Amino acid sequence: MSDASHYAPPLTDMAFVMEQWLDAPADWQRMPAHAALDADTARMVCEAAGDFCAGQLAPLNASADLQGCTWRDGQVRTPDGFAAAYHAYVQAGWPALACDVGVGGQGLPGLLDAALNEMIAASNHAWAMYLGILHGAYACLHAHASETLKAQYLPHLVRGDWLATMCLTEPQAGSDLGLLRTQARPDADGSYRLSGNKIFISGGEQDWTENIVHLVLARLPDAPPGTRGISLFLVPKRLQQADGGWVANAVHCDGIEKKMGIKGSATCAMRFEEAQGWLIGQPHRGLAAMFVMMNSARLHVGLQGLGHAQMAYQLALDYARERRQMRAIVCPAGAGAGDGADPIACHAPVRRILWDLRVWTEGMRALGYWCGHVLDLAAHAPDEAERSGSQALAALLTPVVKSLFTERGFELASDALQVFGGYGYVHEYRIEQTLRDSRIAMIYEGTNQIQALDLLQRKVLAALDGLAPLLQAFRAEAALPSAHGEVLRGWCDVLQTETQALAMDARDDAELPARAAEDYLRLVGWVAMAFAWCRAARVASDAFAHKRDSACYFFDHVLVQAEHWRRRVQAARHLVAPI
Amino acid sequence: MSDASHYAPPLTDMAFVMEQWLDAPADWQRMPAHAALDADTARMVCEAAGDFCAGQLAPLNASADLQGCTWRDGQVRTPDGFAAAYHAYVQAGWPALACDVGVGGQGLPGLLDAALNEMIAASNHAWAMYLGILHGAYACLHAHASETLKAQYLPHLVRGDWLATMCLTEPQAGSDLGLLRTQARPDADGSYRLSGNKIFISGGEQDWTENIVHLVLARLPDAPPGTRGISLFLVPKRLQQADGGWVANAVHCDGIEKKMGIKGSATCAMRFEEAQGWLIGQPHRGLAAMFVMMNSARLHVGLQGLGHAQMAYQLALDYARERRQMRAIVCPAGAGAGDGADPIACHAPVRRILWDLRVWTEGMRALGYWCGHVLDLAAHAPDEAERSGSQALAALLTPVVKSLFTERGFELASDALQVFGGYGYVHEYRIEQTLRDSRIAMIYEGTNQIQALDLLQRKVLAALDGLAPLLQAFRAEAALPSAHGEVLRGWCDVLQTETQALAMDARDDAELPARAAEDYLRLVGWVAMAFAWCRAARVASDAFAHKRDSACYFFDHVLVQAEHWRRRVQAARHLVAPI
Repeated sequence: MSDASHYAPPLTDMAFVMEQWLDAPADWQRMPAHAALDADTARMVCEAAGDFCAGQLAPLNASADLQGCTWRDGQVRTPDGFAAAYHAYVQAGWPALACDVGVGGQGLPGLLDAALNEMIAASNHAWAMYLGILHGAYACLHAHASETLKAQYLPHLVRGDWLATMCLTEPQAGSDLGLLRTQARPDADGSYRLSGNKIFISGGEQDWTENIVHLVLARLPDAPPGTRGISLFLVPKRLQQADGGWVANAVHCDGIEKKMGIKGSATCAMRFEEAQGWLIGQPHRGLAAMFVMMNSARLHVGLQGLGHAQMAYQLALDYARERRQMRAIVCPAGAGAGDGADPIACHAPVRRILWDLRVWTEGMRALGYWCGHVLDLAAHAPDEAERSGSQALAALLTPVVKSLFTERGFELASDALQVFGGYGYVHEYRIEQTLRDSRIAMIYEGTNQIQALDLLQRKVLAALDGLAPLLQAFRAEAALPSAHGEVLRGWCDVLQTETQALAMDARDDAELPARAAEDYLRLVGWVAMAFAWCRAARVASDAFAHKRDSACYFFDHVLVQAEHWRRRVQAARHLVAPI
Repeated sequence: MSDASHYAPPLTDMAFVMEQWLDAPADWQRMPAHAALDADTARMVCEAAGDFCAGQLAPLNASADLQGCTWRDGQVRTPDGFAAAYHAYVQAGWPALACDVGVGGQGLPGLLDAALNEMIAASNHAWAMYLGILHGAYACLHAHASETLKAQYLPHLVRGDWLATMCLTEPQAGSDLGLLRTQARPDADGSYRLSGNKIFISGGEQDWTENIVHLVLARLPDAPPGTRGISLFLVPKRLQQADGGWVANAVHCDGIEKKMGIKGSATCAMRFEEAQGWLIGQPHRGLAAMFVMMNSARLHVGLQGLGHAQMAYQLALDYARERRQMRAIVCPAGAGAGDGADPIACHAPVRRILWDLRVWTEGMRALGYWCGHVLDLAAHAPDEAERSGSQALAALLTPVVKSLFTERGFELASDALQVFGGYGYVHEYRIEQTLRDSRIAMIYEGTNQIQALDLLQRKVLAALDGLAPLLQAFRAEAALPSAHGEVLRGWCDVLQTETQALAMDARDDAELPARAAEDYLRLVGWVAMAFAWCRAARVASDAFAHKRDSACYFFDHVLVQAEHWRRRVQAARHLVAPI
């Protein structure tokens, strides 16, 4: 077995995606906020981030999984080395990477933050959970909080000396936020008193930072029922008194969950007992304020799926090249050595798994970074039409990235595990941890089922020709001279046909979109991957000629499954009675 | 959350499969060995087995997962309650269920043993691991051991007061048994001295029984290299001396693995240091002797997949009926209650998951029990032609059952987990344990990749019209008047066409079968499921009218995927270069 803590940041492929596939540096030049950034600087940022992840985070991944977190009397102890790694992260200025220069940030594009987040998730998903919401909380306060709150809290979040949580879920309210019961009572001084229970709060309590900024969804006394009566509040763990001293707020951690994976992450049950908080944004408009961070949060969860796929690919490839079992039917000259057994990387079933891992990982990286880059354009493109067009594209891409990547990340980790045979089931070979850790990403930040409904019902069918921004991008690529353009064009037609048919049939069968949504998202995802590989094969420089082989593998072996998703979408016309 | 240890044995569906789908009682009457058995007795056996599993094993499943096994100075401590449950199992005579009456067994058919094993795996997979090889070891000794060895060891295995292990794998030899290095040196007294290291030995050491009978593959000094030089030995943990006293044999447990799941099972690294053993069967013919137990062992692993699917189905259905989130678009009258939220069992994405769980679980039960019943016919049918025909059918069915069930078991457990949302990731809701436990079955007893090669290369393509026994059975069903016969017939044609095309193209492309094997097995598996549901819909009595709805769901929604496997098989013509 090779070095158990090994993680090789995929810097070369990152540069390919940013510079060739996206041609991002040209767009950065057009955006005033990023005009000073060039490709070399971006590479240096990625390299430094990769060094941090490989050097500081990856070595803690397996040990933290074994050690887990402990809870005692309301206090949480995180795994050995976690807090120190975070302090090094803060010291190096990483939290400020994509924050505004005006508040002390470095003002770099979200695309680089996406690359950073892929690498953090790949090297240590559990550790990543504590800061998963940090940038989102920053963005939310930046957009909606009062100047007083901003002055008090933003600098801490930008520096990272305080961390943040997002307190949404309650025991009875998971996917259905309309069922939230936590109450917020106005106090005389303009603040509020919050009472209620929240669960599944990542980093709700920890031993990394002196203060924790909880963003809490709750109801005001006059709130209408359902999701239109939810407000957003800032509730710190510790309160500063008028004399400058600090006291504990009435925020309690009642325990942590015993989970399948990301065991180094403290998933807390939180209790607010007349805790003091402050309103963010307008009363009853909490979901709107929170949704500011939703696109980037969902993108980042998708990138966790990508990170797991990358880790699985590395682990499986390394193992398959070392492990020798049986003679291969076809093997490159010199691979088969003395003892009558070839590296299993030569065996056909293993070869297919390795190719699947490669084309999915690299294809998802192109799509995921595209989503990040499009969000940057939505925020900073000089032209309003480009900004709103990018926003519409990001709205479509986000649920696809979140669902597709997390589902594929889990499935690919399972495929990779199979390469290891019995060793795959054993902790020290690490792939079983990747499989366990990856599973959560299909659930949180809106389950993949919720994402699918969001895509088909809220975005594609609610608007006239709602899929158009995505289809236009795909068709523009398909129209260029390339090896796979015609096949891609055919799938664009399929997508359009199926979408129109769904829109038509949904008039008489209101539930049809809900039955078809998951397979529809997969169909879109597979076509998006075809787009990614069509472009990759077209734009790849000679140094990346292997991209053309990968594109062929994708079109020959993987894209056939798109036909399956199409048929499943069609089959959704059959009613399904409740069991 | 309902009772955390709940397991409801699926007795009604078991009776449907045995009595209606298989019409097994009629076959039992024809077999001298089972002529005394009738449907009522079989039901009583299943009910008693179900009581044992639900009452004794299921309550230990979650606690054993948390506690795991411990190893210290060569001794293994199994989870609390495990040994006591086994002693109750022995007391009730369950080990003898399918053993020959002549050696103290109850002589019941393997079909009932299959039902027992499904329930044991569903209620406590880890516990099942200790006795997984018990019946196989019995069968192997029964067929191949000398009379002296039989007299010494068989009664203990039939009673279950000793347990057995199968020692195959070595660190360098997993799927490739040709690489085995363990040596066996003949001793003057006719016994042998074994030296070598074995890994992944389930129950290699335990605190349940006084003695453990290890069946060990090793090489004699004059052994030819590869798999033709492997012999099988019986190596007990403890040896009886001439004076009746007992001494320890030189068999050492050097540690246990830290695994993803089945944590209550001790997976041991074993070291043999000139340990005394006895040859079973002929020198160098160890694999042949061992393969006696292979069909039933692989069937039983497949049944673990079925058990996990059943458990996942129960857990998801119970939860989906209790949990209320959001208004459903379509919901049966009365389901939606006061607080504005419906049971999630009403929501379209959850309904589809529940239906998938139902039709796969019940369809796999039909196929798996069919395999068990066919093995009984192979052993006990009065007519030699029926015995050999059944043997040929079982040879085809076994790798399909092993691979299909374990892959679907894992995937269905993941689908079921999704129904729970965030709770699915938390240990106390149990489904994450089912997911972890289920994953091993895709690996051991021959990885699913090995099964696929076994099916396509060794069984289908090596013989003229090798798939014929299975296709004949499918076509016979398709020819009967029924709702789905014509569709089934169409898929039989597809199977035949694709098989012939593979046979043809493999002449010029020797590696093609290895590239196509996994998807070919899935194609066979999906068509086998279509066969199962076609027959279920046809034979179901009025009390099982719901089987016809399930068959419709399978044909409308699930069978579409078979087209995908066909296309993947076809796509295997494209070469795949090593990475």
